[in-house]
Amino acid sequence: MPVTLTQHRVNYSETDQMGVVYHANYAVWLDVARTEHLRSAGMSYADFEARGFRLAVGELHLQYRKPARFDDLIRVHCWVQECASRRVTFGYRIDRADDGVLLATARTAMMVLDARFRPTRIPADVAAMLPVTAEVLR
Amino acid sequence: MPVTLTQHRVNYSETDQMGVVYHANYAVWLDVARTEHLRSAGMSYADFEARGFRLAVGELHLQYRKPARFDDLIRVHCWVQECASRRVTFGYRIDRADDGVLLATARTAMMVLDARFRPTRIPADVAAMLPVTAEVLR
Amino acid sequence: MPVTLTQHRVNYSETDQMGVVYHANYAVWLDVARTEHLRSAGMSYADFEARGFRLAVGELHLQYRKPARFDDLIRVHCWVQECASRRVTFGYRIDRADDGVLLATARTAMMVLDARFRPTRIPADVAAMLPVTAEVLR
Amino acid sequence: MPVTLTQHRVNYSETDQMGVVYHANYAVWLDVARTEHLRSAGMSYADFEARGFRLAVGELHLQYRKPARFDDLIRVHCWVQECASRRVTFGYRIDRADDGVLLATARTAMMVLDARFRPTRIPADVAAMLPVTAEVLR
Repeated sequence: MPVTLTQHRVNYSETDQMGVVYHANYAVWLDVARTEHLRSAGMSYADFEARGFRLAVGELHLQYRKPARFDDLIRVHCWVQECASRRVTFGYRIDRADDGVLLATARTAMMVLDARFRPTRIPADVAAMLPVTAEVLR
Repeated sequence: MPVTLTQHRVNYSETDQMGVVYHANYAVWLDVARTEHLRSAGMSYADFEARGFRLAVGELHLQYRKPARFDDLIRVHCWVQECASRRVTFGYRIDRADDGVLLATARTAMMVLDARFRPTRIPADVAAMLPVTAEVLR
Repeated sequence: MPVTLTQHRVNYSETDQMGVVYHANYAVWLDVARTEHLRSAGMSYADFEARGFRLAVGELHLQYRKPARFDDLIRVHCWVQECASRRVTFGYRIDRADDGVLLATARTAMMVLDARFRPTRIPADVAAMLPVTAEVLR
Repeated sequence: MPVTLTQHRVNYSETDQMGVVYHANYAVWLDVARTEHLRSAGMSYADFEARGFRLAVGELHLQYRKPARFDDLIRVHCWVQECASRRVTFGYRIDRADDGVLLATARTAMMVLDARFRPTRIPADVAAMLPVTAEVLR
């Protein structure tokens, strides 16, 4: 669990006229990886929202190393970097499945909010599901 | 009013590796044009939702003639083709502002829904704001 | 082969404030399904472009039946409806994997273009890979 | 010029089921603001690409303060923070046009590339068009 892996086949809508993936789309891949990381940890994000909580992106930091291209199979490694009472920080490494070439690294700080968008404490049962890993994949 | 006009500058995120605008993005331009058409008619779509109604796309039909490209200034002409009790159909013509070259024509059938996604009758005050035009711009 | 199937987990970026999938995103699912259909037929779309050809959407027709929602696993059935010398038409049925409930049906007419965006004949080896099926899944 | 301003009306496609703008869309707003900043400076990004250059995002850093919502008119302030020989860093402040409330701050580091995606020196005439401003709008 501490580091999970999701795969994605790059589709045409994600490319731009430079012939590579448009940079904003990487943020969506992080989101999918985070959702699957939570699912592996035993937490459905849909259920979390149904309980009246939200995880909203407070900060996004992406560093692009090599471009991803149409039809590439990419992998997103995801882990919890830090888990504070109102804020959970995830780390990510994106690489190409074929040859493992590093494409990007990223970090997102998620704010725990209630249904009215007020910062709130992460429920204890959820925090317990999110072991922090110091592992940084480069 | 019967036909309104909105303009949009094509941005980089909308292009794909063919070097033209990715086709799904035209649907967003129609949405923006429709929202502005309603605003011109005196109806804020945000207020319409606040009253408990939704306009959901039931059908989308787009015909692409010439590609739009990065940095093109495009225009969307929008009008109401038909207004039934539970369904409003909009027509669109997309062209290039510079030279008027036709890029696409489209039609969307919008279902009137209540907050629980059940089909409902369009409120009389809203229907009164939406004069139908037979005008088809080609 | 005649009808292929691809699956997709609905992600958060695809939802809108109605709490369902934003309608334009279905067009991307069709694109992915088409690319996978071609791959199953033995044709990599990336290679097709490398040979100097393009398949550009000339017409898109989508009918929405039930909304898809966050975290739904959806399936896209895809088949070739018609294969003419310069135009290939694909049919699609989108349903929910869990219970098979129909979400949308669609059709896209693809124009065969050369690298300069001029209509051209589909190469014979590609046409031979694309058996037409009359099957309409409803 | 040192700080330019672009405006954008939030459209429905940009919202998510939290009822606010999906975070990845802010990156597109930055892109539009950057393109308009360059245009104000006398540089068309389309022409820059036609000359064989690319500006690719090497790093993206976004901090979200308050959510943007459907139909909000938002403003993006944009300036050049740093201009090195192969890298131009832009700063951004996003606020709501109505009341000036700060929604987000951001920074993107752009790599200057040639047509083959190799890092290259920014042309002198372009660098001359990009006065650096120390101004940080908070």
